[in-house]
Amino acid sequence: MAAAIRLGQGQGEAPARLAQALDYAVTPGGARIRPTICLSVALACGDDRPALSDAAAVALELIHCGSLVHDDLPCFDDADIRRGKATLHRAYSEPLAVLAGDSLITLAFEVLARAGGVAPDRALRLVTELAQRTGMPGGICAGQGWESEPKVDLAAYHRAKTGALFIAATRMGALAAGQDPEAWEELGDRIGAAFQVADDLKDALESPESIGKPAGQDVAHGRPNAVTEMGVAGAIAHLKDILSGAIASIPACPGEAMLAGMVRAYAERMTPVHHRTAAR
Amino acid sequence: MAAAIRLGQGQGEAPARLAQALDYAVTPGGARIRPTICLSVALACGDDRPALSDAAAVALELIHCGSLVHDDLPCFDDADIRRGKATLHRAYSEPLAVLAGDSLITLAFEVLARAGGVAPDRALRLVTELAQRTGMPGGICAGQGWESEPKVDLAAYHRAKTGALFIAATRMGALAAGQDPEAWEELGDRIGAAFQVADDLKDALESPESIGKPAGQDVAHGRPNAVTEMGVAGAIAHLKDILSGAIASIPACPGEAMLAGMVRAYAERMTPVHHRTAAR
Repeated sequence: MAAAIRLGQGQGEAPARLAQALDYAVTPGGARIRPTICLSVALACGDDRPALSDAAAVALELIHCGSLVHDDLPCFDDADIRRGKATLHRAYSEPLAVLAGDSLITLAFEVLARAGGVAPDRALRLVTELAQRTGMPGGICAGQGWESEPKVDLAAYHRAKTGALFIAATRMGALAAGQDPEAWEELGDRIGAAFQVADDLKDALESPESIGKPAGQDVAHGRPNAVTEMGVAGAIAHLKDILSGAIASIPACPGEAMLAGMVRAYAERMTPVHHRTAAR
Repeated sequence: MAAAIRLGQGQGEAPARLAQALDYAVTPGGARIRPTICLSVALACGDDRPALSDAAAVALELIHCGSLVHDDLPCFDDADIRRGKATLHRAYSEPLAVLAGDSLITLAFEVLARAGGVAPDRALRLVTELAQRTGMPGGICAGQGWESEPKVDLAAYHRAKTGALFIAATRMGALAAGQDPEAWEELGDRIGAAFQVADDLKDALESPESIGKPAGQDVAHGRPNAVTEMGVAGAIAHLKDILSGAIASIPACPGEAMLAGMVRAYAERMTPVHHRTAAR
């Protein structure tokens, strides 16, 4: 990650504030869940091209960070706080937030292409995969786009907005290691769905301080939310079901037990503190 | 181009307004100068992989169109009119304009990767080249980023903001045809510089109706401008010098005369109507 970010700095002719803004957008960062999932799947698949799986992990996180910067803009969430500090457009400016998002999206593809020398066919498939899960018609941009529709296809909305980069994470981990990505799609899809429900629970139950951003945003913006639809207990039971299915979906491979352990650890972290007993 | 755009439409689960916005951003389009230059250089270099040079041309235009959508946003130019019709954020909304720009940038890399099967090494070099000329530290995002600096490096500003995609156009034409891109950089650099001066002249001299967007924007936004720096006659003489150098820079190749003719035709179109005699 550090190497990628230095692309934006230390060269005399780059605009310094935008370079600083890129650094601000990706450090110290959140939980780095998408790259962790990507690398875990790559490892489980043998990881015979670690430079490529590293690049895939970095690219995923760059897209994620770029999308957060744009999501926080005044015309979307108009958020003041992200990851416990001022959002990028508040700390720098709205123009620099738009440009930082654009630059991070672009950098993600550059990182993949530069790492592709060892296996150009795989790198091209990674570029295609990441683009599909980022843009239109099925990526995170499409997911955000559903919020501008008069009538929302809820399944498509959730799958694209939150799910797309988790599906990308498992599929890209497999692709980087030269394995068939199809077998890994359900795992990514289910982890993404679980994170959506967990996020809905956090949004409904926790304080802004504990989640590092404003709470109650879904209700404030009229967005669909699992807690509104099925209540707290219903949402927790749903989360548990999704994660059991995720573990069951892991393809037979040397890293199967390691991956199941990772999903269980996420399940523990995703369940709201006061409800962990109920979720077991 | 049409095939690329259909990626955003006709699939049941895409958000319809964002899909329409993508179409709005790229059609009917402007002069398509960057893809024309790219294809002309590819032809001059033998164009042995036409699927790849086509993809390079489409990708360049998608990036250009996406960048215009973001440049027109309220936090930058706050423009009402582009290419003779309402800017995207006025016709749709600001959220859809941010997402359309993000989606077009992403689609550009997807188009390159999908065309890369015939020559994966070249496709990866095209992805890297396009990313470098789009993002940070030297692409059009960097160019725009200079406008947020207290002290502007004018050469870096112009080279990145307008020049980067022209340099990409000649270099990507050569790369798609399997040739050395270095020999073609000066041509792109000079055409880009010429367009910047021509744009400055238009901005200073012509009516909003004839250029399809508001005039006097550079003065209004305090941006550097060749006419402010050297006057109308000086800027026209400078334009002529740049284009002579562009023609002189064309590498010896079968398509040399064709390319020189293309640059001369652009020179004619770029010179303001009332000053064409002076520029010859």
